[in-house]
Amino acid sequence: MVRLNEIRPNEVAVPVDFKTDAAIMFIGRIHTPWTDRLKCPRQGRLDGPVCEIEIFEPWHQALAGIETFERLEVLYWLHESRRDLVLQSPASDGKVRGTFALRSPVRPNPIGTSIAALVTVEKNVLKVRGLDCLDGTPLIDLKPDRMLFTPIAPPQPGDFEKG
Amino acid sequence: MVRLNEIRPNEVAVPVDFKTDAAIMFIGRIHTPWTDRLKCPRQGRLDGPVCEIEIFEPWHQALAGIETFERLEVLYWLHESRRDLVLQSPASDGKVRGTFALRSPVRPNPIGTSIAALVTVEKNVLKVRGLDCLDGTPLIDLKPDRMLFTPIAPPQPGDFEKG
Repeated sequence: MVRLNEIRPNEVAVPVDFKTDAAIMFIGRIHTPWTDRLKCPRQGRLDGPVCEIEIFEPWHQALAGIETFERLEVLYWLHESRRDLVLQSPASDGKVRGTFALRSPVRPNPIGTSIAALVTVEKNVLKVRGLDCLDGTPLIDLKPDRMLFTPIAPPQPGDFEKG
Repeated sequence: MVRLNEIRPNEVAVPVDFKTDAAIMFIGRIHTPWTDRLKCPRQGRLDGPVCEIEIFEPWHQALAGIETFERLEVLYWLHESRRDLVLQSPASDGKVRGTFALRSPVRPNPIGTSIAALVTVEKNVLKVRGLDCLDGTPLIDLKPDRMLFTPIAPPQPGDFEKG
């Protein structure tokens, strides 16, 4: 049995006080081939279908220079996920694991992160491969893949601290 | 000149309507040696100082099984960052780049992501290396490093789609 929002055997939900400690603004929208959560990839693949990331105003200018990176880290809001499970049973077999030991979309702050391969940038639309989310998923951030990025700011003392 | 919140030559701020499209709950707090933004590492290093991640209730149970992963993806809220710059000049040299072409903490949704090496887990406190954030930074998510995680849920059609 695959889950949409039901709780499976041995899963544990906790009472949550949904207070707003910080406010997210949606900065764009992701267009993918998947309109059904039960058909999405469980994880994106870099040879997967081309998907589109549309950036909203006033953020178009913030794309300047992004075309120089082969891979991007993409953060998105998993808007259909429940947020109150602490133990989950992905295989529906009665065995449970903690939410933080899973990359399930069900989590207290349902933020997905993927590394996507950049195909093209045209105006405010990026084409990428490697996403795994539903069509219409709200975008919350884009950054260069950490493996490809060298900080430009001047060095700071913490850069040199070992533990 | 290093920046705290001032705008440097050629940087561009946009008027932002800070509406709440989604609400973040802080699920813990990060304890690091850095109490000054001008001394933090620009990026974490896996041989850096040991830092502590404290998980708040009701999320303690969600740590079950996390000790089996050598590296974790950590998401945190960069609570001191301004959010309205679309072009930034990290070197303060008049050259600007788009916010999405940088890993600067200044971004519309100031969420930092790091890959941290897990040292120990004791009750609701994790010790890790590889963070780069201020002492007291709010935690928003923890997941296994994507390179170490194999989905447990049954396969879905999207898993097999190439583009």
